[in-house]
Amino acid sequence: MWIYRFEDDFSMASLRRVRRPDPEPGPHDVVLRMRAAALNFRDLAIMRGEYHVKVGLPLVPLSDGAGEVLQVGSKVTRLRIGDLACPVYLPNWIDGPLRPQHGARRLGGPNDGVLSELMCLPEDEVVPMPGFLDPVEAATLPVAGVTAWHSLFELDRLRPDDAVLVQGSGGVSTIAIQLAAAAGARVIAVTRGRHADRLRELGAGEVLSRFDDVQADVALNVAGGETLTPMIAATRLGGRVHVVGYAADRIAELDIFTAIQHAVTIRVATGGSRADFEALATTIERQGIRPVVDRVFPLDDLADAVEHLERGGHLGKVVVAW
Amino acid sequence: MWIYRFEDDFSMASLRRVRRPDPEPGPHDVVLRMRAAALNFRDLAIMRGEYHVKVGLPLVPLSDGAGEVLQVGSKVTRLRIGDLACPVYLPNWIDGPLRPQHGARRLGGPNDGVLSELMCLPEDEVVPMPGFLDPVEAATLPVAGVTAWHSLFELDRLRPDDAVLVQGSGGVSTIAIQLAAAAGARVIAVTRGRHADRLRELGAGEVLSRFDDVQADVALNVAGGETLTPMIAATRLGGRVHVVGYAADRIAELDIFTAIQHAVTIRVATGGSRADFEALATTIERQGIRPVVDRVFPLDDLADAVEHLERGGHLGKVVVAW
Amino acid sequence: MWIYRFEDDFSMASLRRVRRPDPEPGPHDVVLRMRAAALNFRDLAIMRGEYHVKVGLPLVPLSDGAGEVLQVGSKVTRLRIGDLACPVYLPNWIDGPLRPQHGARRLGGPNDGVLSELMCLPEDEVVPMPGFLDPVEAATLPVAGVTAWHSLFELDRLRPDDAVLVQGSGGVSTIAIQLAAAAGARVIAVTRGRHADRLRELGAGEVLSRFDDVQADVALNVAGGETLTPMIAATRLGGRVHVVGYAADRIAELDIFTAIQHAVTIRVATGGSRADFEALATTIERQGIRPVVDRVFPLDDLADAVEHLERGGHLGKVVVAW
Amino acid sequence: MWIYRFEDDFSMASLRRVRRPDPEPGPHDVVLRMRAAALNFRDLAIMRGEYHVKVGLPLVPLSDGAGEVLQVGSKVTRLRIGDLACPVYLPNWIDGPLRPQHGARRLGGPNDGVLSELMCLPEDEVVPMPGFLDPVEAATLPVAGVTAWHSLFELDRLRPDDAVLVQGSGGVSTIAIQLAAAAGARVIAVTRGRHADRLRELGAGEVLSRFDDVQADVALNVAGGETLTPMIAATRLGGRVHVVGYAADRIAELDIFTAIQHAVTIRVATGGSRADFEALATTIERQGIRPVVDRVFPLDDLADAVEHLERGGHLGKVVVAW
Repeated sequence: MWIYRFEDDFSMASLRRVRRPDPEPGPHDVVLRMRAAALNFRDLAIMRGEYHVKVGLPLVPLSDGAGEVLQVGSKVTRLRIGDLACPVYLPNWIDGPLRPQHGARRLGGPNDGVLSELMCLPEDEVVPMPGFLDPVEAATLPVAGVTAWHSLFELDRLRPDDAVLVQGSGGVSTIAIQLAAAAGARVIAVTRGRHADRLRELGAGEVLSRFDDVQADVALNVAGGETLTPMIAATRLGGRVHVVGYAADRIAELDIFTAIQHAVTIRVATGGSRADFEALATTIERQGIRPVVDRVFPLDDLADAVEHLERGGHLGKVVVAW
Repeated sequence: MWIYRFEDDFSMASLRRVRRPDPEPGPHDVVLRMRAAALNFRDLAIMRGEYHVKVGLPLVPLSDGAGEVLQVGSKVTRLRIGDLACPVYLPNWIDGPLRPQHGARRLGGPNDGVLSELMCLPEDEVVPMPGFLDPVEAATLPVAGVTAWHSLFELDRLRPDDAVLVQGSGGVSTIAIQLAAAAGARVIAVTRGRHADRLRELGAGEVLSRFDDVQADVALNVAGGETLTPMIAATRLGGRVHVVGYAADRIAELDIFTAIQHAVTIRVATGGSRADFEALATTIERQGIRPVVDRVFPLDDLADAVEHLERGGHLGKVVVAW
Repeated sequence: MWIYRFEDDFSMASLRRVRRPDPEPGPHDVVLRMRAAALNFRDLAIMRGEYHVKVGLPLVPLSDGAGEVLQVGSKVTRLRIGDLACPVYLPNWIDGPLRPQHGARRLGGPNDGVLSELMCLPEDEVVPMPGFLDPVEAATLPVAGVTAWHSLFELDRLRPDDAVLVQGSGGVSTIAIQLAAAAGARVIAVTRGRHADRLRELGAGEVLSRFDDVQADVALNVAGGETLTPMIAATRLGGRVHVVGYAADRIAELDIFTAIQHAVTIRVATGGSRADFEALATTIERQGIRPVVDRVFPLDDLADAVEHLERGGHLGKVVVAW
Repeated sequence: MWIYRFEDDFSMASLRRVRRPDPEPGPHDVVLRMRAAALNFRDLAIMRGEYHVKVGLPLVPLSDGAGEVLQVGSKVTRLRIGDLACPVYLPNWIDGPLRPQHGARRLGGPNDGVLSELMCLPEDEVVPMPGFLDPVEAATLPVAGVTAWHSLFELDRLRPDDAVLVQGSGGVSTIAIQLAAAAGARVIAVTRGRHADRLRELGAGEVLSRFDDVQADVALNVAGGETLTPMIAATRLGGRVHVVGYAADRIAELDIFTAIQHAVTIRVATGGSRADFEALATTIERQGIRPVVDRVFPLDDLADAVEHLERGGHLGKVVVAW
């Protein structure tokens, strides 16, 4: 089988295709034939040497992938051959609140990621996906989908009378719109981009270009920087703001007066547990949600895909498929 | 204006139509022209002398009503003339958790209820209803709808990956099915009655005649008696059971072994705050929910309506309209 | 009776002593003979025109006071003549979560404060204090004590296995140390001041000069500015930081990488409900806690007291008494 | 080494002392030289064939034990030779909420228990104890102590203004008194036994013979049967009752009227996670708590110890030591 990996540094120039023996699964393992991988800002941060966790070389990149189950060990019960399935991004985090040991392994850095022909994993580190998804759609879920779910339904507990504010049209925001709408909430999307109509189709009741006059119960901040305080100002008293990204700037300015006036709770978290991923999959299946893919690049054009993500302005996730 | 009230005892024979001067609203009051009232088991319990709160005579009966706003005081801001609106069943309970003073006043006993031509109330004790409801539908909400909301979304926090188990086809159960489905949850209804098709139309994914093999996250118990333990057995580990009624027997048998095996949380509560009622109205409006009315009786046939409720087997609420 | 009030602006020069007729309490009112008032940063912010709520003239200043019950109306049940008692800083907030209407009235601005010989208040807006406190001690509680309680025990739920990190030696921090220790938690105080021994006597298990190497479960931030991110870094994974002040700078810098690494929850709030104040009083009584008074100024030296607060470096609250 | 085990049935007559080779610890294992074991009602239930989980033969009995660390594997980090330590009763349950897989293994049935000279266990399934405890005291904690902690501080979140009601003087109740008092709460003990003075010494502010006139926030029910409803009646509105035992009868009678009037939450659970056990150990260390031992029997008198537990009326735990 082939894998891609960063050899000497984290630049595209250093990424090599390498041959490896095909895996032989143990009794509790499954082998996935990988089909697609989605890009995340963390991949950019690693390439820039700015990621908040130390990452060594060589490294198979990318955290988000999907494929079909090709082989199952003799004791495997959670998956069957032919299932569409995704590796879990934080494989140590099965359930419950985040604990130090849960973040010790992370696919795509510091641990090897999904950019490979086959992956052999303990069945406990793989989640089956709804059958109506294709691998490109499924590949969008392990980081962005799980982050949105964990924020809205595990840290928070969205109710159908809530109004949810999302920012931009990136991968976390689009799945958050779909999930919040599926839970009966009203969704307000704020974007300066050109995707207003598509955000409405996904479930946003309102699409605005500014935070002014918004009164949300829950807000999802993906940009940080100067957007945090205006977003807090757009929540009602006792509102909850989830900071899940730093697309604009990793330093967010928090005006304490504004925050006191809104008696805000701010939760800062990315990712989620395998239980979160399973709950997300259940909800996607029940509601027939199709995650949003901005553009699919062939594997040979991975560098273009990375550039496309860096430019911003996309709607949903950027995916490579093979 | 006319009112009906129990004069000498709580029997239908003692219920008298009495004339009263029309109310003159103060600056913070609204006058409702009442149109419909729904019956509750608490009305039966009061008539039988079995209610758990002391109730005196004379008493205008019934807790659940709806009407149009006929007049508004000069300082009223929450309602406008012509609005469809409902009096709040527990008028002292504005928001937050239940406190002793919140239950001090209860419409329909010990305080005068809704069976009257006009009601003059402080605007703080009235909630406007979505305009697409008719008064008969709105009258089903103040007790049954608010109880279902308070249990599922205030005490509990239903998620779209939850499975919710409801019992029978009464007024709390039917609105609970509609609300849970609107929040994206899977609904399992257990009933020995003949309304399976209608329960499916309301949003139940499954309708069963027994609790066996069910694995619910959340269950709503309206019957008590011998149904509590089997219902607990039908919840998954860590499940939550809400006891909101006692249609079968006010004494429930709790098998502690079963309860330990399911690590169950049991919450016992009826009613809810005005904030719950407003959140319910928001959700009904957003989702276009139409509460289920079993049968509408003219006011002259109130005794028949009471008998109809006592017989059981209805689907949704029993209402009188005028 | 006398009152003091700002007449033309919010400067000490504009503060005038004015005679007023003695109050005549209604059936639900109590009259307090005020004895002492504590200063808060909000008083400084109002004098500087920097407070986050609009405040008009004339205004009786100061939010925090205590006195004895001099008269009670015929229907008063919660207080008796001779009781030591405090007016509630946010009189509309009886119980439950903060709602917009709860902040509409605030003693000391925009509503008249406590700097007066007598105060006539509805009994619902007054809380009796433990008898072993003197008025100077009691006057420290309505803002600082209630803020600490609300953060640690209402928004948070401190456990006896938690480690709590407090900052400096001001009024919120000293009562927080006492309350956290009374709840069995370990307390770590970080201060560059000279009060280490006294903080240990109050219950701090450790007193440090820097946040380095601290691993707290809960932290109380009173300074904002550049202290927020290092404080987050001093919490364990899943830690909770309560921002209750802005002594250093109202703009806090939030490093999202640090915040993600610690999966932090930040709650921003000041004040609390009457139920919080009552719970605080119960705990103070049970545990025999004596709030910390830095220095007591006579009323004539109010300007010196304000300057003393502005200089910083105090231990506990700055109080004026008469 | 020796072990004791039930061979043919779960009677004392069937309990045999058997020789086994001494264990050889792997790199992640520790070997404990066991010193003491405490009895639980679950041991009686297993002997009577009434336990709620299926248990097979042969079986080393008893869930609760303590000993010293005799050997540690080369990779062990959590324990050192000489540490006092306890095996975890539910070894699969590391942290977070209870999940089905967490209860799959249980020491003392269905899995082998602690009645053996040596135990070889993965270090993840052992918790170090405060050094000032002796093995007899430590042996009381894995079931009773962890159950009390899990109920009061994990499912519930006790506050220092709460009043806690406990029942009787058994092992869960005595450690609950000590823990609740250490958290600053007021404790009310209801017992018909003769241990009132000792319960006061442990931290009970009041010892009563009946539930009448009690107004608790939180109550711990260890008896079930006819005691549940009166205990609910002794909680304030919105009170929380934890059902952790069934000493009187496994069927509890729940009067729904009483439960509605008190808007009660009932949580039914026994045991807890390793994280609960560690939090308990931290608290015991911080507060210098010494768990209560009713009587220590030599190993040869195990049958007498079992009879002593069956008779009831003890204060704290019944322990065998060797």
